[in-house]
Amino acid sequence: MVYTPNLISRQFFGKIVLTRSNYLKNFVVRNVNRNSIQFVVPTNRKFATSIESSTSGAEIPAKKHAPTKKVEFTADKYTYLHRNPNFKELTQDDIKFFASILPANGLIIDNEEELMPYNVDWMKKYRGKSRLVARPKTTRQISQILKYCNENKLPVVPQGGNTGLVGGGVPVFDEIVISTNNMNQIRSFDPVSGILTCDAGCILEVLDNYLAEQEQGYMMPLDLGAKGSCHIGGNVATNAGGLRLLRYGSLHGTVLGLEAVLPDGTILDNLSTLRKDNTGYDIKQLFIGSEGTLGVITGVSILTPPKPKAVNVAVLGVSTFQNVQKALVTSKNKLSEILSAFEFWDSDTLKLSKAHNIQGTKFPLEDNYPFYVLVEISGSNKYHDDDKLQNFLEELLANEIVKDGVVAQDETQMSTLWSLREGIPEACSKAGAVYKYDISIPLSVFYQMAEDMRNRLQSAGVFGEDNLVSNVIAYGHVGDGNLHLNIVAKSYDPKVTNLIEPFIYEWTEQHNGSISAEHGLGLMKANYLKYSKSSSMISIMKQIKQSIDPNGIMNPYKFLPTQ
Amino acid sequence: MVYTPNLISRQFFGKIVLTRSNYLKNFVVRNVNRNSIQFVVPTNRKFATSIESSTSGAEIPAKKHAPTKKVEFTADKYTYLHRNPNFKELTQDDIKFFASILPANGLIIDNEEELMPYNVDWMKKYRGKSRLVARPKTTRQISQILKYCNENKLPVVPQGGNTGLVGGGVPVFDEIVISTNNMNQIRSFDPVSGILTCDAGCILEVLDNYLAEQEQGYMMPLDLGAKGSCHIGGNVATNAGGLRLLRYGSLHGTVLGLEAVLPDGTILDNLSTLRKDNTGYDIKQLFIGSEGTLGVITGVSILTPPKPKAVNVAVLGVSTFQNVQKALVTSKNKLSEILSAFEFWDSDTLKLSKAHNIQGTKFPLEDNYPFYVLVEISGSNKYHDDDKLQNFLEELLANEIVKDGVVAQDETQMSTLWSLREGIPEACSKAGAVYKYDISIPLSVFYQMAEDMRNRLQSAGVFGEDNLVSNVIAYGHVGDGNLHLNIVAKSYDPKVTNLIEPFIYEWTEQHNGSISAEHGLGLMKANYLKYSKSSSMISIMKQIKQSIDPNGIMNPYKFLPTQ
Repeated sequence: MVYTPNLISRQFFGKIVLTRSNYLKNFVVRNVNRNSIQFVVPTNRKFATSIESSTSGAEIPAKKHAPTKKVEFTADKYTYLHRNPNFKELTQDDIKFFASILPANGLIIDNEEELMPYNVDWMKKYRGKSRLVARPKTTRQISQILKYCNENKLPVVPQGGNTGLVGGGVPVFDEIVISTNNMNQIRSFDPVSGILTCDAGCILEVLDNYLAEQEQGYMMPLDLGAKGSCHIGGNVATNAGGLRLLRYGSLHGTVLGLEAVLPDGTILDNLSTLRKDNTGYDIKQLFIGSEGTLGVITGVSILTPPKPKAVNVAVLGVSTFQNVQKALVTSKNKLSEILSAFEFWDSDTLKLSKAHNIQGTKFPLEDNYPFYVLVEISGSNKYHDDDKLQNFLEELLANEIVKDGVVAQDETQMSTLWSLREGIPEACSKAGAVYKYDISIPLSVFYQMAEDMRNRLQSAGVFGEDNLVSNVIAYGHVGDGNLHLNIVAKSYDPKVTNLIEPFIYEWTEQHNGSISAEHGLGLMKANYLKYSKSSSMISIMKQIKQSIDPNGIMNPYKFLPTQ
Repeated sequence: MVYTPNLISRQFFGKIVLTRSNYLKNFVVRNVNRNSIQFVVPTNRKFATSIESSTSGAEIPAKKHAPTKKVEFTADKYTYLHRNPNFKELTQDDIKFFASILPANGLIIDNEEELMPYNVDWMKKYRGKSRLVARPKTTRQISQILKYCNENKLPVVPQGGNTGLVGGGVPVFDEIVISTNNMNQIRSFDPVSGILTCDAGCILEVLDNYLAEQEQGYMMPLDLGAKGSCHIGGNVATNAGGLRLLRYGSLHGTVLGLEAVLPDGTILDNLSTLRKDNTGYDIKQLFIGSEGTLGVITGVSILTPPKPKAVNVAVLGVSTFQNVQKALVTSKNKLSEILSAFEFWDSDTLKLSKAHNIQGTKFPLEDNYPFYVLVEISGSNKYHDDDKLQNFLEELLANEIVKDGVVAQDETQMSTLWSLREGIPEACSKAGAVYKYDISIPLSVFYQMAEDMRNRLQSAGVFGEDNLVSNVIAYGHVGDGNLHLNIVAKSYDPKVTNLIEPFIYEWTEQHNGSISAEHGLGLMKANYLKYSKSSSMISIMKQIKQSIDPNGIMNPYKFLPTQ
């Protein structure tokens, strides 16, 4: 069926016809109903058959990594780190104790190859020297382990899916790893309230699939590239953000209850399934984002929203960052309750993705634009949603906020458009050594960060195609004020590192930003906390750490400043 | 214009015609557009001219109370309470110090009449003996006051609008009151991100009006009956819930930053205006719901949602509580992203409201139903919203979940329907002495609580029209699992009290509920905390209190158990 544009669609498609008539020949444009606009990418193009197959990860890949012995030990690389002499070293008696609690397949002891995936992070930036990984199945086992470790001053690292980006989930020296791998049971789900309760080791995607299969259809309120590997306990411990935060809010709002084990073995049963509970300090909030430094999260209850019946995605070309901001305000106004993502990337990002053949980069917008925006809508009624999307696009074009755009026609096209955004980290990884930064800054200076960084590296003579630094790309969750700045270098070179840090942290501080929007502090940023928090804030944090973990056995050397 | 029903509307209105043809004569029924159903209450009825004039308060009245000397002193009424002998009594030197910090109009000293509104809560249930009220204008002044009080072991009570229900905001003995009355400046608002920053003493309704006046139109993410008096700082300190929680979530998710003064005078500058910030423990979360026991909140930054362009309200008559639950699931499914309230009350509630001439109770549903549900929708497109509402009502009628219903036609009718719900506390107050309970319980046993309580009082021979207890009514935020159970008695009688408590708390504990869904603990429930939190949870709470307020000067005798 040939597309017959109505007044609004003409505006949108008229632009395409005028500017890219040859290109348009390759497209099939259809009218499905009078309210929807449809700009269809070619039928002969091979689309991904599912979202999974097209997304290799947003910030984190979905597949388990296979680390090699080449990764340098963290302790050798960061010479300021010293093993805490108060900690005991693992003895045969300790090993006997752990063996008395856990079955043989729940322990890995002194087997370098088997220990490797627990000692090394997926970025292969950090490598610990742990001799023992415990993989308990029950909260009680974790309680026994922690009690023993606390009494014997044996340090531990809680580990979920090991998909973190700041070295928080792997040991630095010989800390014992407590993995939640074997704690993966869904405990309950209430289809009236939408409240899910599960073990900490449940994989995010498994939970999401489980909810989608319920009669009424629910979904997890968070989504991130690592969903195929990451554990919900790890998500909560790191206060993971991701793609759905814009719509469903942070885990501080959606997590209703936690079960956690304190360093002394006390089981905190705060696994409430109530939406409202004002009885005492909200202790669970301390654990959300504590990165394993206060205890081990063993169970989570979380409020899940109904799964939208209709989803659509548009990608837009924009000339200035000011217009990106205008598009955001317009989306709040016109898409309002159905807006579910507002992502952006710059032209250098797209160039890099194209160079590395990332899925989706045979991009349907022919011209190049300085900025691209991905808008996702999710709602309960496709006709209403399409109508709102049309009004939104009309407004953008009428006010010349957007130059060009495409709207997906089906699920595979949606995932192709999403892969433009989600494939960016993969493109970076292919291009070289990547310095990854994750900052929150006010939108008014959001893109200035990238420009200032390029100028700085340019002035220092290290920036250019065959130079030390080949790319400075900016992308991220602009709807949340969260910029991912990735700097691609030939290798991790101290000269480059010193040009970037602490400059980027100082810059962020000057602009009232946060040096970690969603990745956390881990080992990487522990000593930079002062750029985002005042000394009185850090002091009260230390007081809380001291009060709950007086022996400091929980995830040492990380999170709070050691220097 | 005469209404011409379409297929769906016929179903809805057909019912009305069949069951209440005489009543219908009094109504004007109009068709505004083909997608909307309109059932209009009589044009000659006097509707409230604004929401304010029709709502005398949800749980709390909007007007300042005028307490009298008749209110019994808390210390005399609750004989288990003893003044902490470690606290110093106020001396002339202390008064001199406060006078050196605050101007004359910032202090009330030993003036019984002027002190009264600060010493007595609005319910007139609690009365303290404070000799001094400090009304600072700046965070620095609060810092100086607290530092002095801490060094001199002078206990303090932070007070906002004094609209609490559990005696948390007024002194018990001679604690100094620190009022946020004079801290009422809006500090900033960003129309792109929707983030508002303001002093703690700003009145909720003032903030809401300010946001509504912005070019794009924003709103506060919380709404409660006391909005005309309550302070945002008090809302945060008590983690106020209210009518919009269902849609916009709790303050743990929407509050982005806090400025607070610790007992030792330290100013915690955590007034972030970032949507995402994962740098360290989320300390502000401890203050949300801490009821003034850790420090004084002086500034708040909060994420505000866009103001909906269209709002509508329906009230439905339902035969069983099971069908109330079914209506809730249907609303999630059919109204989904536009559902903004789902409230309920039972037939005894309506009877009581009618007996006391509460606005709106000339109720447009002629027949009586055991349960009533109020559904509010808020969205960005009236036509879409009306269509969704129609589909929702069609589904309810087709499945015989709902027996009858009305939909408001304009703003005044909406507020009339809302006043059915919001006028309930007023009806109770007029009827006698009210025992107010605010519990969270799983929906499966939600209404059983009311039935069990009635049976218990009946068996004890105290329940009936001219008996000690005249009414046991149930209403509340059923969409959040939050029941308000109000028991109306001739007077506060120990015989009645002992029949209700601890029975209601034990019952709640047995059904995994919370003894305080949104009202907090205050003085009223401090000693009942064990019914909702385990001993290990209470122990960690005490540890945190001890760590931050070692002298215990902040809001003593409350929140944490003293017995």
